[in-house]
Amino acid sequence: MQKKGLLHQVIQHLCCLPGVGPKTAQRMAFQLLQRNRDNAKALAEILLKALAEIGHCQQCRTLTEHTLCEICVDASRDTTTLCIVESPADVWTVDQATVFTGRYFVLHGHLSPLDGIGPDELGLDELERLLAKGEVKELILATNSTLEGDATAYFIGELATKHKVQASRLASGVPMGGELEFIDRGTLSHAFKGRRKIE
Amino acid sequence: MQKKGLLHQVIQHLCCLPGVGPKTAQRMAFQLLQRNRDNAKALAEILLKALAEIGHCQQCRTLTEHTLCEICVDASRDTTTLCIVESPADVWTVDQATVFTGRYFVLHGHLSPLDGIGPDELGLDELERLLAKGEVKELILATNSTLEGDATAYFIGELATKHKVQASRLASGVPMGGELEFIDRGTLSHAFKGRRKIE
Ligand SMILES: [Zn+2]
Ligand SMILES: [Zn+2]
Repeated sequence: MQKKGLLHQVIQHLCCLPGVGPKTAQRMAFQLLQRNRDNAKALAEILLKALAEIGHCQQCRTLTEHTLCEICVDASRDTTTLCIVESPADVWTVDQATVFTGRYFVLHGHLSPLDGIGPDELGLDELERLLAKGEVKELILATNSTLEGDATAYFIGELATKHKVQASRLASGVPMGGELEFIDRGTLSHAFKGRRKIE
Repeated sequence: MQKKGLLHQVIQHLCCLPGVGPKTAQRMAFQLLQRNRDNAKALAEILLKALAEIGHCQQCRTLTEHTLCEICVDASRDTTTLCIVESPADVWTVDQATVFTGRYFVLHGHLSPLDGIGPDELGLDELERLLAKGEVKELILATNSTLEGDATAYFIGELATKHKVQASRLASGVPMGGELEFIDRGTLSHAFKGRRKIE
C-alpha cells in the first residue's frame, strides 16, 4: 500500500472539498499530478493569491479583491433598493436568476445567539449607517427560507421600519414545477397561508 | 455580475478537476475562500509541494516523492511476480482489491502508435532490462480490458516469452453480480469464448 506520503496528503486535502469523497479525491489527485500538472500548478497559485487578496467589499461585504466590489462601483445599478442575502454565493444566485438591478448587502450568516452571532457580526451596524443616509428606499429581505433566515429577516425588517425604509420578504411557497405530492409539509402550509387572490 | 476577477479565476481552475462542473466549482470556491480558508491554503501548498517533488519510482515507474516507491522498498513483497498496469491509480486499485503481494510496473498509458506512444514511451526498454536480470518469473498483465489494453498486453506477452518469463492476463468476463441482461455484447462474447469447465 502506497497510502502514505505526499500523494496521500494531497488526497486528504482534496477530501475537504464539498461533495468530494475519498474515491473522487484519489481520482482528482492522480489527474492533477499526471495529466493535468499545468492546471494543478495554476490552481494552487491562484488559490494562494485569492486567499491573500480577496476580502470583503467595504460597502456590501461581499467577496472581492478590491475595496468596493463590481456591483457597488457599477454606476448603472439602482442605489435605492438593497437586497439582503446571507452569503456572497447568494449574490450570484439572485443576480443570475432575477432581473434585480439594485445593490446587495451580505450578512455572512444569520442571527444565531447561541453561536455568538448577533447584529454586529452580521454587519447590521453598517447597514443602519447606510439606511441612515436616506438613499435606500427599499430593502428586499432574501435570507434563506429557514427559521434562522426568517428570524433574521424579521429583525432587519424592524430596523427598516425604524429608518422609514420599506421592507419586503421573498415570497415563499410551492417551487415552480413542484408537484404538491412531493412538497414538504412546512412549505405547503406556508404556501397555503400565503395564498393570493387571483385577479 | 461579479464573474470577473480572482474569484472567477479560482472557479475556472476548479472546473478542470474531474467531475467538477461550473456549479460545483462555484460552491467549492466559496467554501474554500470563506469557511475553509485554512484547508484551502494547506491544499494549495501541498499541491505545489507534490508537483515539485513527486516523480516516478526508478524501478516500477509509479508516482512517488522518493527514488523508489514504498512497494519497491518493501522487503516483504514477492520479487518474482510483476503486475503490469497502465496507471499509478491502477496500482492502488489492484493492491486494495486483491491479495497480490508481488511488485508492479506502471506503463503510464498503452501502445498507441498514432499518438506516438510506442514501447519506449511505456518504459518497455526498462521492463526488458528488469526481465533480463532473471529474478522475475511471472508477469501478470493487468492492462485495461480495452482494444489498446489488450494489444499492449499481447505485445508485453511476447517480450515475456522472449525472456522465458511466464505471462498471464486478467480473466475477462461477466462481472460478479452482473446480470446477463445488462452486460454489453463484447463482454458477453468474451466471457462465452473464455468459458471454463466445471470440475
Ligand atoms: Zn459591494
Ligand atoms: Zn516502485
